[in-house]
Amino acid sequence: MKACGLVVEYNPFHNGHLHHIEAAKEKSNADCIIAVMSGPFLQRGEPSVIDKFHRTRAALTAGADIVIELPYAYAVQSSELFAKGAVHSLHQMGVNSICFGSEIGEIEPFIHTVNTLQSTITKYNQIVKMHLNEGDAFPQATNKAYEAIGINHLDIMQPNNILGLSYVKTIMKSNLPIEPLTIQRLNNQYHDETIEHTVASATSIRKELQTVGLTEKALQTLPKGSIQQLQHYKETAGIWHHWEQYFPLLHYKVMTMEKQQLTTIHGVDEGLENRIKRTALHAQSFSDWMQKIKTKRYTQTRLQRVLVHILTDTTKEEIDRFTQNCSVPYLRLLGMSNQGRNYISQHKKHTAIPIITNLKKSLPADLSLDERATNVFYSVLHADNRIKLRKQEFSGPIIADAFT
Amino acid sequence: MKACGLVVEYNPFHNGHLHHIEAAKEKSNADCIIAVMSGPFLQRGEPSVIDKFHRTRAALTAGADIVIELPYAYAVQSSELFAKGAVHSLHQMGVNSICFGSEIGEIEPFIHTVNTLQSTITKYNQIVKMHLNEGDAFPQATNKAYEAIGINHLDIMQPNNILGLSYVKTIMKSNLPIEPLTIQRLNNQYHDETIEHTVASATSIRKELQTVGLTEKALQTLPKGSIQQLQHYKETAGIWHHWEQYFPLLHYKVMTMEKQQLTTIHGVDEGLENRIKRTALHAQSFSDWMQKIKTKRYTQTRLQRVLVHILTDTTKEEIDRFTQNCSVPYLRLLGMSNQGRNYISQHKKHTAIPIITNLKKSLPADLSLDERATNVFYSVLHADNRIKLRKQEFSGPIIADAFT
Repeated sequence: MKACGLVVEYNPFHNGHLHHIEAAKEKSNADCIIAVMSGPFLQRGEPSVIDKFHRTRAALTAGADIVIELPYAYAVQSSELFAKGAVHSLHQMGVNSICFGSEIGEIEPFIHTVNTLQSTITKYNQIVKMHLNEGDAFPQATNKAYEAIGINHLDIMQPNNILGLSYVKTIMKSNLPIEPLTIQRLNNQYHDETIEHTVASATSIRKELQTVGLTEKALQTLPKGSIQQLQHYKETAGIWHHWEQYFPLLHYKVMTMEKQQLTTIHGVDEGLENRIKRTALHAQSFSDWMQKIKTKRYTQTRLQRVLVHILTDTTKEEIDRFTQNCSVPYLRLLGMSNQGRNYISQHKKHTAIPIITNLKKSLPADLSLDERATNVFYSVLHADNRIKLRKQEFSGPIIADAFT
Repeated sequence: MKACGLVVEYNPFHNGHLHHIEAAKEKSNADCIIAVMSGPFLQRGEPSVIDKFHRTRAALTAGADIVIELPYAYAVQSSELFAKGAVHSLHQMGVNSICFGSEIGEIEPFIHTVNTLQSTITKYNQIVKMHLNEGDAFPQATNKAYEAIGINHLDIMQPNNILGLSYVKTIMKSNLPIEPLTIQRLNNQYHDETIEHTVASATSIRKELQTVGLTEKALQTLPKGSIQQLQHYKETAGIWHHWEQYFPLLHYKVMTMEKQQLTTIHGVDEGLENRIKRTALHAQSFSDWMQKIKTKRYTQTRLQRVLVHILTDTTKEEIDRFTQNCSVPYLRLLGMSNQGRNYISQHKKHTAIPIITNLKKSLPADLSLDERATNVFYSVLHADNRIKLRKQEFSGPIIADAFT
């Protein structure tokens, strides 16, 4: 059986994601679509709107065959490490190809860029460092370095091009037997704040959901299965998640941490602990805090990731230990279709690492990070709902009831 | 000038406390009444109903001359360490006597008990240990030991007798030049749950306040100055504090701590970390958690203190460092009358340790514990109120406007 891998967040699952699955099937000619999906917290440093189980169900309904969880240690990271974790997880699942959406929609510019980069890496690194020292944020610094080494056929200021480049880089550098494929993203801009089409950005859909609700406008952007999951989660959990709900917990946490302790947290570097402590004193809400804390250098996304790590008490040492040599210590299976079940029963003979279906028994120590992230995610629910939903994580069966 | 010291919590300040100040003045013949008062969290492991500044104002209005804060490291402790911190603080303030309320109302039985205890200490300790090993809680074990060494003229199961005994013990063991005095508590039982008289237990008054409000029944038990402070705090802070408000923060904290980390917290001994983690999973509220967690051995009070330490992230190492040799590294002045001001200007020549009026400048490292406790205490307020009230701690003047 041939498998094609997708790197996803599905926050929430929308029409663009449906198109992605269908186009990837066609392009890869695979029998099985495997999605590696972030868990409770996402790459841009925020909680997902609904939990991973409801997102898994939406993905399976829309045609994915297997959903595995990208471990927290890779999920809440800059694109480089995020991509490494995702690609190596898919490699462990035995995929033959990985298909990603990009603004450019052709694979050659990615391959060419990685080749150019490899032959000019010293110069590239020097230029990045120089611009960082001049106060640029990381994306600006890398963009300037790309220009300086003569890469101009791939716009790496486009968010999906950046991620795609990281996937291709990982595949090529580690010499993995995976074919990179890309499809063009449909008419939307990743950062669009308002819904303009039936294929809209996840950002604009979240905004609509959280400020108004499941309006006609939002409904037109979502497959039926995703709408059901959004509704079911709201009925079960009482809320859709967003950062402001976590503000009291985060603020309390920061106010009880000494600066020295803060510096042990992953991402707290270069004196950031002082800025965090100082701005916390006057923060009225999460968005107010963001306005007070962010700078040209510390982008909102980078800061949000740091704040997620504070919230989950994730130390540098834990992340270093987990991600050294891009190891993937386990595969966490969230759900599968019948086709996915066939694939796994064949594949599991070929993989050396454990495939875990819940956190109940004989947890590898590494899973403590994922456990904490889950605990934090559900912390903002009423006790009844929290206890009920958390059970799926620790004793629930995987999601596999009736997906053909 | 002669000074008499009182050990207090004033949670809230009631008619019994007013009587205590007046009777202490008369009995000691002192010119100056100095109260050492617990800060945001109290000896029984709970938040105080209103903050320390409002309680200070109530005490000064009722005739106290000086209020200093008992450091957190001594305030949230069993009676032994609590008494040591309080008595040594008052000693540093130069008091000539300490006057406490007791069920028995005479000082001789206390002195006799301490003497008996000193001559039979080995036997006493053996018996306590034996009963602890048999599963008794600490108060039961000590009571049986007292009986066994023949002490029967002081009922040490009475809460104020226990505390009083700890004060007298500290004075006699450290050979401090302080005369112990006691007055009989008026017609109330410490643990009474309902208000029966104009002098009622603080427990019954808190219960009335928190379940019904400032009713006629509650009003009759409180001096006017205390009523004003309770009302003013509610207007300023929006709430009166109680444990349930801290439950989401505490629960979140426990759910993000590994067992290993929990064992570093002061009071988490003998595998208690397992019990805390296990019961947390199903806790619906603070009181529900208490029902699930407490045992004969782990009394509610002891557990509440442990949970306060988890909430404030207070480690064994911090407490050990702070309390070694019963050191009192600073005196935190909260408020004073004109008479108090005269006393302090005379006394400060004689004390070697710093008298601190707010946490703004050049904090001794030791104060970080008190700072964290304050941060946690105000964490349950709305952001506006939190920011406003926290200012008093760090840049406010002490309370001394017009008390003669």
